[in-house]
Amino acid sequence: METNLEQLCKKAHEARISVGMLDSDVKNETLRRAADKLLAHEQEILAANAKDMENGRNRNMPEGLLDRLALNHDRLEGMADGLRQIAKLDDPIGEVISMKKRPNGLIIGKRRVPIGVIGIIFEARPNVTADAFGLCFKSGNCAILKGGSDAIHSNIAIVEAMQEALTAMQIPEGTLNLIESTDRETTNAFMKMKQYVDLLIPRGGRGLIQSVVNNATIPVIETGTGNCHIYVDEFADFDMAINIIRNAKTQRIGVCNACESIVVHRAIAKDFLPKLYEALKEYAVEMRGDDCAVSCMGTDAPLVSKATEEDWGTEYLDYILSVKVVDSLEEAIAHINKYNTSHSEAIITKNYDVAQKFLDQVDSACVYVNASTRFSDGNEFGFGAEIGISTQKLHARGPMGLEALTSYKYIIYGNGQVRP
Amino acid sequence: METNLEQLCKKAHEARISVGMLDSDVKNETLRRAADKLLAHEQEILAANAKDMENGRNRNMPEGLLDRLALNHDRLEGMADGLRQIAKLDDPIGEVISMKKRPNGLIIGKRRVPIGVIGIIFEARPNVTADAFGLCFKSGNCAILKGGSDAIHSNIAIVEAMQEALTAMQIPEGTLNLIESTDRETTNAFMKMKQYVDLLIPRGGRGLIQSVVNNATIPVIETGTGNCHIYVDEFADFDMAINIIRNAKTQRIGVCNACESIVVHRAIAKDFLPKLYEALKEYAVEMRGDDCAVSCMGTDAPLVSKATEEDWGTEYLDYILSVKVVDSLEEAIAHINKYNTSHSEAIITKNYDVAQKFLDQVDSACVYVNASTRFSDGNEFGFGAEIGISTQKLHARGPMGLEALTSYKYIIYGNGQVRP
Repeated sequence: METNLEQLCKKAHEARISVGMLDSDVKNETLRRAADKLLAHEQEILAANAKDMENGRNRNMPEGLLDRLALNHDRLEGMADGLRQIAKLDDPIGEVISMKKRPNGLIIGKRRVPIGVIGIIFEARPNVTADAFGLCFKSGNCAILKGGSDAIHSNIAIVEAMQEALTAMQIPEGTLNLIESTDRETTNAFMKMKQYVDLLIPRGGRGLIQSVVNNATIPVIETGTGNCHIYVDEFADFDMAINIIRNAKTQRIGVCNACESIVVHRAIAKDFLPKLYEALKEYAVEMRGDDCAVSCMGTDAPLVSKATEEDWGTEYLDYILSVKVVDSLEEAIAHINKYNTSHSEAIITKNYDVAQKFLDQVDSACVYVNASTRFSDGNEFGFGAEIGISTQKLHARGPMGLEALTSYKYIIYGNGQVRP
Repeated sequence: METNLEQLCKKAHEARISVGMLDSDVKNETLRRAADKLLAHEQEILAANAKDMENGRNRNMPEGLLDRLALNHDRLEGMADGLRQIAKLDDPIGEVISMKKRPNGLIIGKRRVPIGVIGIIFEARPNVTADAFGLCFKSGNCAILKGGSDAIHSNIAIVEAMQEALTAMQIPEGTLNLIESTDRETTNAFMKMKQYVDLLIPRGGRGLIQSVVNNATIPVIETGTGNCHIYVDEFADFDMAINIIRNAKTQRIGVCNACESIVVHRAIAKDFLPKLYEALKEYAVEMRGDDCAVSCMGTDAPLVSKATEEDWGTEYLDYILSVKVVDSLEEAIAHINKYNTSHSEAIITKNYDVAQKFLDQVDSACVYVNASTRFSDGNEFGFGAEIGISTQKLHARGPMGLEALTSYKYIIYGNGQVRP
């Protein structure tokens, strides 16, 4: 098994140079054909998916997960559309980011190049298979996909369908790879294939991400967890604050850019919090507050309870909000920087100095003034696609589009220069 | 001990926000004062260094390492000058790299910010202490330095001297930290302080770097190893080729951008190699060739021997060159991409197509046409300083200046936008 894994990684590593050199036209045509193939093989893919669904039900997989696993005609159309969209994006590869002549006549350019081989480790959502391949391929990278065992039949069928397009276009075999063994040993061995794989991106829950970070020797980009805060300043417009919090909390509940915690200035807590409570009542949002927040909203209000220390650090992904009351902007910033996951935070204020200080001092990938944290998204940022949202500071931070899947090389034009 | 380590890391983590906000003027004045303090405390620093030197001699440390460890007035002046140079560089922090208005009116800017807390793990060169602090501080980061046990007294004295400048300028205590325990357990625990440390940069030999890569959970930038190649194409100017190889091999021998291996097109091997051999003879460069190279240079020539498989992958850092003869450009590129460390490679050619293909297909941080690999250096590239040369593709590749020690955050200006 391990030999197979190593061979697969090596094959991808060897293919990386030719894949990195493909013209945009060839890549785009391949992506469009891969989309066609997904639809042409609908029967096989849905049959494979039915097998996964049956296994899932036999193993009492929760309804939510079964729903993420399920494919049907519309979802397959969605995957194919995704590939076609990626074909329409600008090709990031080859751009010379800067080029300068040095005093000795050397011309030094910085050229955008693919990263090489990218490993994606993900859980039971088979649509990631097409999506991750599309983004890696458009940016000139070879992809090694390692999906969860729950979706293995679906993933195999999807990859086989897309492979047909690659073969027809004479794209090297190592371009798209699926690790079919789903046992833990294979996953652990994969995370250490540093010789062949340049980057690992885990996509899934906290447990998966932590396991990759702790075990990988390959560089990792951490994505995902978002304990996002909205701070309602003493100079906030209440209607705007309520509208934004309602949107950030309830517009979509299980996503990383949803708001999980609000922080409120003490000067307005008594006026603001009852209004917020009323506005969120129709969504039955449970409010877990500190003493002051609880007393402002009413100690016997049915949706109000006392927050524990654990609440401040929890990403609920549910109709729950933690509510902290603070004495100052400084305290709000300190609270946020202590408990956030460096994903997205917003302030609601009309005060210039307060807004500037919040933008400066909150340590997060995306810091908003007077807007919903729900905008932290590759499409909303204008990238056209997204491979995930990085919560680390190395390489890429925040929503990652195609550029996040690139590196650079220096190209140096000389005419005989030697170093004195 | 581990509690102390954690407290130290936590202190740095807490200081990162204020350090990231310091004005350039304050940072520059602090750097100049730190330079002054190094010289003001020359006596204490040289006394501490004498202790390290004595311990080193008692432990039979090789002469080369003793030389790297030794400090004297001139070297201390050099360290102080280094800090003053860093004070003169542009401050990378705060630059807004791009800012665009989205269709919904949101204004999204990408602002350059510090990485936060940077850990530098290095070996017995005490000058790294001042240098690494200077670069981290100028780019708004807190530094945690972990030097080798051999230089511990010197490092403590250097850090204490610089700390005086920080205290006088009221810079937070957590800005500059030295881990004084030098045992392996502390180092291992440090590499896992992911909660507080954003980036680790190992500076030293291959063993140190591999150990950090294998054990760290904190993101790492790999630096250093350079098995650099020069390919002499069939369309090369021989004089230029010899001049460049002489420079890249012999101008400085123990550095990562020195040439370790040459690749020669078969069409010119018989004419070129004897000339090269003659030119390098005065430096007594040992030539380890494949069969063809050996026969071109003369099987009984005193400095010529047969290369083993191991030679192709070896960074000699010595007066040795491996010599490979190839039938084509394609074979040269394949050989280089198989054995290089992705650091720096050069081609010598007068042919346009060959030069372009080499630039495109060699997978290295720095790819040269008709110039010496010795130019791979932050100063030579115009960065004004260098923290190391990255041989990985994530975050920073090639020579790393101040910008490599920065990340970015998105700052988003809204007026009440919510996501539809």
